[in-house]
Amino acid sequence: MAKRPVDLDRLWVRPGTKAGLSSRDPADTHGINRSGAEKALERQIEDLVRLQHVLYAERRRSVLLVLQGLDAAGKDSVIKHVMRGLNPQGTHVTAFGKPSGEELDHDYLWRCVRALPRRGSVGVFNRSYYEEVLVVRVHPEILADEGLPPEAGGDGIWDRRFEQMRSFERHLAENGTAVVKVHLQISREKQRERFLARLNDPAKVWKFRLEDVRERAFWDDYQHAYEEAVSATSTDYAPWYVVPADHKWFARLAVAQILVETLDALPLAYPQVPEDELPRLEQARVELEAEERYSTGASSAASRMTSSSSKLP
Amino acid sequence: MAKRPVDLDRLWVRPGTKAGLSSRDPADTHGINRSGAEKALERQIEDLVRLQHVLYAERRRSVLLVLQGLDAAGKDSVIKHVMRGLNPQGTHVTAFGKPSGEELDHDYLWRCVRALPRRGSVGVFNRSYYEEVLVVRVHPEILADEGLPPEAGGDGIWDRRFEQMRSFERHLAENGTAVVKVHLQISREKQRERFLARLNDPAKVWKFRLEDVRERAFWDDYQHAYEEAVSATSTDYAPWYVVPADHKWFARLAVAQILVETLDALPLAYPQVPEDELPRLEQARVELEAEERYSTGASSAASRMTSSSSKLP
Repeated sequence: MAKRPVDLDRLWVRPGTKAGLSSRDPADTHGINRSGAEKALERQIEDLVRLQHVLYAERRRSVLLVLQGLDAAGKDSVIKHVMRGLNPQGTHVTAFGKPSGEELDHDYLWRCVRALPRRGSVGVFNRSYYEEVLVVRVHPEILADEGLPPEAGGDGIWDRRFEQMRSFERHLAENGTAVVKVHLQISREKQRERFLARLNDPAKVWKFRLEDVRERAFWDDYQHAYEEAVSATSTDYAPWYVVPADHKWFARLAVAQILVETLDALPLAYPQVPEDELPRLEQARVELEAEERYSTGASSAASRMTSSSSKLP
Repeated sequence: MAKRPVDLDRLWVRPGTKAGLSSRDPADTHGINRSGAEKALERQIEDLVRLQHVLYAERRRSVLLVLQGLDAAGKDSVIKHVMRGLNPQGTHVTAFGKPSGEELDHDYLWRCVRALPRRGSVGVFNRSYYEEVLVVRVHPEILADEGLPPEAGGDGIWDRRFEQMRSFERHLAENGTAVVKVHLQISREKQRERFLARLNDPAKVWKFRLEDVRERAFWDDYQHAYEEAVSATSTDYAPWYVVPADHKWFARLAVAQILVETLDALPLAYPQVPEDELPRLEQARVELEAEERYSTGASSAASRMTSSSSKLP
């Protein structure tokens, strides 16, 4: 295992405490510089690949990474750079946008349940059911379009949803899915810079959406919604980490390390071969080795066959 | 609304109390006879159809009927006779058998979540996630094949699953799905009769499976598992009813009435047309009525067109 350069305890939101977003520095780098972080990321990814292989072989548990953050916080970039080393067959990324009609015709967890990772896999939610207590809380008029019966909305809805999310995540944890949640925290100024960069770069301008800029008017409301949601739903079985994301290279390293430590905390093990299978495996080894000797010594036999078959038309 | 001949209070398992299965009579008919029950069923179905129409039009809530019972308890028969009057576009029945590989690769609720009814619909689960605390409890060796990590099985698993189910159903209820659960209770002797009837009837023998008879050896274990599950999970938001099922005609009537009362307890209402839409609706009425007068007076024009087109080859 590689060293763990980021102090995850500082990013972790201890269950039962406030997230304290306003007193966290989105530009923090834990004293690491860019080139150090990039080298360290490579080593974390090596660990991640090794751990994922055991997860996949064991096929009993799964890992769910919930990734939240404001526009331009770097969610896509983290996914690209952290997950790239993983075996895609055991990795499942789902981005959640505006819900479809069929999705709105079900409770808000429904579409996320459908996208849960299989045993042996790492699932990533790029945005998630948490939007239901973030964007929907900032713009409560969205609720009116969710088709809820009146009694399901109204007073206490955010607390009820927090409780529903905690119960849901407890169920997942108790049934073999390790849930870990990351809030990529950027500063208002850094978001402005990144939006401008999108506008000025032909390779990035496709990502620019005018409504993202309009959302900046609700900056404080979003901070409040994140503070409430993260504080209420960081639990022993599904912890939140607030990752400073003004420096993308730091955010990538931190998320990679969070995944490594999440996997490393699981009692993962390659499946055991049953004792009574061992003689048959030994026999298979003998047969395979014999076959290799045969085929080495069989080149003249093979050429004899070729010459005899040359009689055929 | 038709009269409610079955005393549902007697079938209801009051939250926090024991189901008391052993002191319930599976042959009870609440003083109703067969022909009375069959007539009453027709009237319940009429109510059900009317209520389903509002549910469908409103499209905010859904109803989930969970149907459990031992083999030959009459689950299929209840579904066929009670649901037949409903609009199939707003009805969704899902039978849960042995889980597939993909299903086992997720938590046990996953496949049931995928089958949840849309807003405006009535969903029926023919067997359900409750099998996870029934057949799996009677045959705990099944757990070993569920791919769970060791810590997810073991001590306390049934109590944990009860809690997971209560949380799940609370989430559904709070988000617009009314959950109601029925245990069709038959006597051991009645099950024997029905198995024999299957063996002796060419139209029914396809339903006979030898392993169903073998399960009779575990009769008491199933009674215990049902007693525990029903007692632990009958809640205000997702009640259990124990329906005497030795007489199929009584079970059908009781389930129909349970559905009617569940729907009737919802504050269902046809969607309101907004005030400012009314003038446009009035205009549409005027246009449509004018069109009718036109088309009545246009029969001679239509015959002129026919005669002119007769010039074409």
